[in-house]
Amino acid sequence: MGLGLIGGSLAKAIKQNTSHRVLGMDVNQDVLLDACSCGAIDGKAAPSDLERADLVYLAIYPEAILEFVREYGGRLKPGCVLTDACGIKGEICAAMEELSQGAAYQFVAGHPMAGKEQSGFAASDPSIFVGASYIFVPGKASPEAVDTVENLARQMGFGRVVKVTPQEHDRNIAYTSQVPHVLACAYVLSPRCREHQGFSAGSYRDVSRVANINDELWTRLFLDNRSCLVEELDELLQNLERFRDAVDQADEEELRGLLKKAAQIKREVG
Amino acid sequence: MGLGLIGGSLAKAIKQNTSHRVLGMDVNQDVLLDACSCGAIDGKAAPSDLERADLVYLAIYPEAILEFVREYGGRLKPGCVLTDACGIKGEICAAMEELSQGAAYQFVAGHPMAGKEQSGFAASDPSIFVGASYIFVPGKASPEAVDTVENLARQMGFGRVVKVTPQEHDRNIAYTSQVPHVLACAYVLSPRCREHQGFSAGSYRDVSRVANINDELWTRLFLDNRSCLVEELDELLQNLERFRDAVDQADEEELRGLLKKAAQIKREVG
Repeated sequence: MGLGLIGGSLAKAIKQNTSHRVLGMDVNQDVLLDACSCGAIDGKAAPSDLERADLVYLAIYPEAILEFVREYGGRLKPGCVLTDACGIKGEICAAMEELSQGAAYQFVAGHPMAGKEQSGFAASDPSIFVGASYIFVPGKASPEAVDTVENLARQMGFGRVVKVTPQEHDRNIAYTSQVPHVLACAYVLSPRCREHQGFSAGSYRDVSRVANINDELWTRLFLDNRSCLVEELDELLQNLERFRDAVDQADEEELRGLLKKAAQIKREVG
Repeated sequence: MGLGLIGGSLAKAIKQNTSHRVLGMDVNQDVLLDACSCGAIDGKAAPSDLERADLVYLAIYPEAILEFVREYGGRLKPGCVLTDACGIKGEICAAMEELSQGAAYQFVAGHPMAGKEQSGFAASDPSIFVGASYIFVPGKASPEAVDTVENLARQMGFGRVVKVTPQEHDRNIAYTSQVPHVLACAYVLSPRCREHQGFSAGSYRDVSRVANINDELWTRLFLDNRSCLVEELDELLQNLERFRDAVDQADEEELRGLLKKAAQIKREVG
């Protein structure tokens, strides 16, 4: 369900690496046509197809996931595995746990850690998954259901599967993904950004890369993870201020100590 | 002079793309041997060779540049072009202007905008220059001297040549290069950095890439550009705080507005 950047890439990766039959649903009929034409899906899914589905990927916004489950959850067969691709897990996992009490399907929350600066089916590309991490939040799902999505992840080319709680997921994502996105946007807001032509090297490109952001999606992702994100931003602000003050006061010893410590962490962590 | 990452790459780029004879000097004899063996230089330069040099690249620390000029400046022939590769221009240009009054040589300050996370001759690689910007600060140099270094830059594969004052250089470099280096280091200082295994995607790698920093070199570069760097860091801190506050207060409109504006700037500037 949902053939955007992630849903389209999942469909293509499954078709490319397995012999499973893949049916697609999308609000945009042109996208469904494109997906059929290029072989990303075997065809369009009718609601009745859901009754035979072994696995359903929900690559749509959180509200749409809850709507889908309310409307179609009862039609899924016993043992059907339902998985999502939301970037934040606390809210969706809590809402799904409530919605899924006594349901025949198994819900395994998932987050394929891959992306691109572009969005939509046209940008979808199964190679973004190769070597990437796929995070799962198994919750109360059966071990068999978790095995199903995990095995498929490995077949799609993911390099690592990690299983965590919603809280562990959201805390880590705040650091590894959300802070860099905030940073990229804050960085390009400097008046200097429009004047620096000819001076940009790799480090400008790296920090600003994700600034061309989907504002609707990321506003939602940031607000769904408020407390973790604010905590990480405060940590970063504090550390940036230590550098700022060391430079301002020409405190060579402090500055060198901070740089040494950062270099050591980077060498250790990679 | 100086066959580190930049000096070594300059030597290799000149040998690879022109028929000029290149002689090298370095405090480390092993590096000179390596550079000779792999054809990065035609041989070791003796002080007497300086008298015949048409162009001298000084890819060494600022203090070493001034020492070199005091010791050997008088031996350079009339019209010999002297150029450096310092990352900050205000101090070195002022010092060189004073040192070079009445000299026979022409000093054109230069900054090849390219680098790598590694340092030293072993990491040198002429391909880092391909398509990059070479910034020149002509100062009082003759147009002929500027043409010499500019033409050679183009032959080495640089994609763009920019000519500015020391002040313009240092203000822009604070934004495009120094802030990203401070950011990378401040970012990895978060306690979360050591715990995030399995959660890192492209955006973590991009922001943290340059954190494995040469603390001696960058302490010097930061302190040589204090006022510009502090100004840019303050700008970034302010913008980051706007994001932080919008997230903290769940101010959806403000947050979305900031993201929209950032995305627009990134699309325009690239």
